[in-house]
Amino acid sequence: MPSPVNTVADAPSMQPIGVFDSGVGGLTVAAALRRRLPSEKLLYLGDLARLPYGTKSPSTVVRYACNAADFLAARGIKMLVVACNTASAHALDALAAAHAGLPVLGVVEAGAAAAARLSVSGRIVVAATEGTCRSGAFARAIQARRPEARVEQVPCPMFVALAEEGLTDGPIAEDMVRHYLEDYFQGPDAADCLVLGCTHFPLLAGALRRVLGERVVLVDCAEAVAAQAAAELAGQSLSAAGDGGLSLIATDAPDRFARIATRLFPALGPVPEVELANL
Amino acid sequence: MPSPVNTVADAPSMQPIGVFDSGVGGLTVAAALRRRLPSEKLLYLGDLARLPYGTKSPSTVVRYACNAADFLAARGIKMLVVACNTASAHALDALAAAHAGLPVLGVVEAGAAAAARLSVSGRIVVAATEGTCRSGAFARAIQARRPEARVEQVPCPMFVALAEEGLTDGPIAEDMVRHYLEDYFQGPDAADCLVLGCTHFPLLAGALRRVLGERVVLVDCAEAVAAQAAAELAGQSLSAAGDGGLSLIATDAPDRFARIATRLFPALGPVPEVELANL
Repeated sequence: MPSPVNTVADAPSMQPIGVFDSGVGGLTVAAALRRRLPSEKLLYLGDLARLPYGTKSPSTVVRYACNAADFLAARGIKMLVVACNTASAHALDALAAAHAGLPVLGVVEAGAAAAARLSVSGRIVVAATEGTCRSGAFARAIQARRPEARVEQVPCPMFVALAEEGLTDGPIAEDMVRHYLEDYFQGPDAADCLVLGCTHFPLLAGALRRVLGERVVLVDCAEAVAAQAAAELAGQSLSAAGDGGLSLIATDAPDRFARIATRLFPALGPVPEVELANL
Repeated sequence: MPSPVNTVADAPSMQPIGVFDSGVGGLTVAAALRRRLPSEKLLYLGDLARLPYGTKSPSTVVRYACNAADFLAARGIKMLVVACNTASAHALDALAAAHAGLPVLGVVEAGAAAAARLSVSGRIVVAATEGTCRSGAFARAIQARRPEARVEQVPCPMFVALAEEGLTDGPIAEDMVRHYLEDYFQGPDAADCLVLGCTHFPLLAGALRRVLGERVVLVDCAEAVAAQAAAELAGQSLSAAGDGGLSLIATDAPDRFARIATRLFPALGPVPEVELANL
């Protein structure tokens, strides 16, 4: 058992899993955790006042991520899942150091492990934000597991806007996939695996499949980190036996948050009231 | 003469014009000011740490805008130009109240005045961010001048991403213009005037013209506010006789700021060193 790090008196196994992201996109991670761990309570923080992280400098991203993690830790959580790829890429070590004893998982490590396992040719493309690509975190994490892998990290910032607008299918989305990615999946050196290195990108899976072909393996980092969370909770005897539940907190615009969450993630069901927090 | 509001001892006419925006887009305003007022010094602040404003709540936008204005006022400026449409829409009154004696101009008022003057039919479309559209500020400002005008405010958030990526021409940009705007400029009730209600949108002028036709009047709020600034300085005998100059400050990622500024605004010439400020 880890030593208790929270000020809250609940037994650790009954505490929620804390999930944080710069915005709504990390709800893909909340949805994946809910499918895999339906008994767990989830406490989700979206830092809408300062989104997006993807274009900001590493030091600013680390500062924002530490604020968010401190806020969730003070509420009492048994695990922290960093659902934002940019924050995972830049801040995971800082978060783990600041919250010793609390398991801290990130989407980058989880997605990289899945890609290293699933690619046959070792030619892997990571589609992500500018910040995540510049950090090189995916390439490092994949090559730590498969040193011979050839990893291309491709910034696809327009995919975020497409997903937030609900333009995830149709000619605009397909043109955009062609613009950013088609070249990497053609010719004798074609990649066989695409890591969806931003929380929003799984929403574009249909357009990606149609343009890049059915044979490309799409790695969904949300699914990968949910699997890792399930294994970690079981291994540490921290699994809950409750009936789940999702609490949402936003640092700005709670109404917009609820509206987008409902539209993008119908599987989450009716979105509960969103709490506003000023970090 | 207004009473001096700054702590700096320079004669007011020698002080720079302060320009502020959430990011780089407001450099369209700096460029327009430079063309029209080449003798004036410009001091530009881009709040990159907290961009974009366009999706954030009014109270958060007011708070950020007041921070930025306080920072510029403390440096000593003779006029404040709010280059961000979202900040103009929500925060202009608060800024004017907080800085009595300092002329405060905003792109929304300037663009609305131009549209009210230039539209023949009084059918006007405003393309802007979600936040600017929700504020209704353009419609109010246009109808204050032409009560019979019919104003449609259309959120076009993907235009921002297109412009920042340099995808301002070609099929993706034209598809996007079609998606958002084509319907408003067809049929018997077609609009005849499009207000480019976000600093980035003038970069899409080519695609807009090709899809919407040559007869549509495009209102560039940057040009409109620069004309207003010139009139105001002349009227208040605040015009400078210097040789201009542009100083840039960013609240995050000064290198990214310099890179994008150089690419998007070649007319500004080589971008000087960007100062980093933590607001």
